[in-house]
Amino acid sequence: MLERKTTYQRKVNFYETDAQGVVHHSNYFRYFEEARGYLLEHLGLPYYQMHNEGFFVVLVEANIRIKHPIVYQDVFSIDTTVDIKNEFSLYFDYKIYVDDRLCAIGNTKHCIVKDGKLIKIPDFLLRILDAG
Amino acid sequence: MLERKTTYQRKVNFYETDAQGVVHHSNYFRYFEEARGYLLEHLGLPYYQMHNEGFFVVLVEANIRIKHPIVYQDVFSIDTTVDIKNEFSLYFDYKIYVDDRLCAIGNTKHCIVKDGKLIKIPDFLLRILDAG
Amino acid sequence: MLERKTTYQRKVNFYETDAQGVVHHSNYFRYFEEARGYLLEHLGLPYYQMHNEGFFVVLVEANIRIKHPIVYQDVFSIDTTVDIKNEFSLYFDYKIYVDDRLCAIGNTKHCIVKDGKLIKIPDFLLRILDAG
Amino acid sequence: MLERKTTYQRKVNFYETDAQGVVHHSNYFRYFEEARGYLLEHLGLPYYQMHNEGFFVVLVEANIRIKHPIVYQDVFSIDTTVDIKNEFSLYFDYKIYVDDRLCAIGNTKHCIVKDGKLIKIPDFLLRILDAG
Repeated sequence: MLERKTTYQRKVNFYETDAQGVVHHSNYFRYFEEARGYLLEHLGLPYYQMHNEGFFVVLVEANIRIKHPIVYQDVFSIDTTVDIKNEFSLYFDYKIYVDDRLCAIGNTKHCIVKDGKLIKIPDFLLRILDAG
Repeated sequence: MLERKTTYQRKVNFYETDAQGVVHHSNYFRYFEEARGYLLEHLGLPYYQMHNEGFFVVLVEANIRIKHPIVYQDVFSIDTTVDIKNEFSLYFDYKIYVDDRLCAIGNTKHCIVKDGKLIKIPDFLLRILDAG
Repeated sequence: MLERKTTYQRKVNFYETDAQGVVHHSNYFRYFEEARGYLLEHLGLPYYQMHNEGFFVVLVEANIRIKHPIVYQDVFSIDTTVDIKNEFSLYFDYKIYVDDRLCAIGNTKHCIVKDGKLIKIPDFLLRILDAG
Repeated sequence: MLERKTTYQRKVNFYETDAQGVVHHSNYFRYFEEARGYLLEHLGLPYYQMHNEGFFVVLVEANIRIKHPIVYQDVFSIDTTVDIKNEFSLYFDYKIYVDDRLCAIGNTKHCIVKDGKLIKIPDFLLRILDAG
């Protein structure tokens, strides 16, 4: 199992809240995407570069459990890790904290598509995830 | 186990797509919310009325598996069911179709909050879900 | 001056609200987009068909004045008209009502792009707008 | 005329793009909100503090002209200024740059609401805007 980890941090924006006064749950998946891009970039694998080379990282599964709602102006951190459990899938795990309080945990599963077809995780990606 | 079911339908809006040319995955959870509200309204339980009476239906878990991406102008249907498996939680299941093709399945778990505290599912809610 | 008009109607979704308890202003521009697509479709000019033929309708200006906030579950109507004031630009005007109350007015300006270049409004579009 | 200015910077997120491959125009108004909050915070006037004291800064007008679309991964800057032109309204102006290229200009107008009523801009706000 290969594993890498980063911590991504930012502040909640007002437009991400809803009339219950908290961050709307759909936005957590957007936060996950930011954290995922941050981790890939940290590994030298920016999304846009993969796009430019014709590789699409496609989300096929997404899960979240919210323990404590986060609110406007909260500064949250997301601990993100990536694993490869089989030759077709990337798995990311996320933990969202505000200060030391664990507010939400989630994960996403992705596959790689090139020329419209599902492909094995390409070697350059394996090498980078392996080298860390 | 109590169960109710509706089918909610609408068209994908352009602003719900992303640069991969498909609906951004975070929007499926917004579609689920629409379908959930539609089901509750069908049962005579509009969200806004519960809000007005001080009951908040709070999402604590959300999961999705995407099988086929949906795109701009697709007309999709969501089959939605609701279950009560214990005295504290509502469970919704969703299946998103475009024509007869199953494009995504998901579920969400919710609890009820009143005056800032987690409460048992109130009787009026049980009665309505039971009466169907 | 050519002019066409439709009225588009739907209900506010919960995820479109913000922590001030009203629809977040950015969403009005998304409502405008829905209303615009509805008008073009009514005229036999669906967006996606224009896309397929390589014509992109690009928004270059957008303006709104909000008179009364709209809230969760409001059913709003948008009166939409389209004008051509010069050979390069389409102008849409929007009025958002809840019941008979005018809640917001806005407009957008668009140009047509083909093969990455700004082009004159194509004849087939003029003919359709003229025929009404 | 009172005037204050900040420059706010961040990167475009993937979920802010649409199927035309660019940032969806509605998101520029969200960027404006971020930039506005950044300016107010810089002036010692965080939004959430004003909320806590019962003052709501309500957007009543928003306008944008887009000159060049911005895309995924662009790092953009927003030059933001605030003016008071009469005793009821705050005016913000925004210029969005990527590198040295002016990509969009916009402005928003806001009034202050307390206890559900439109009020004059309160003295503490005038003092802060005046002191700069």
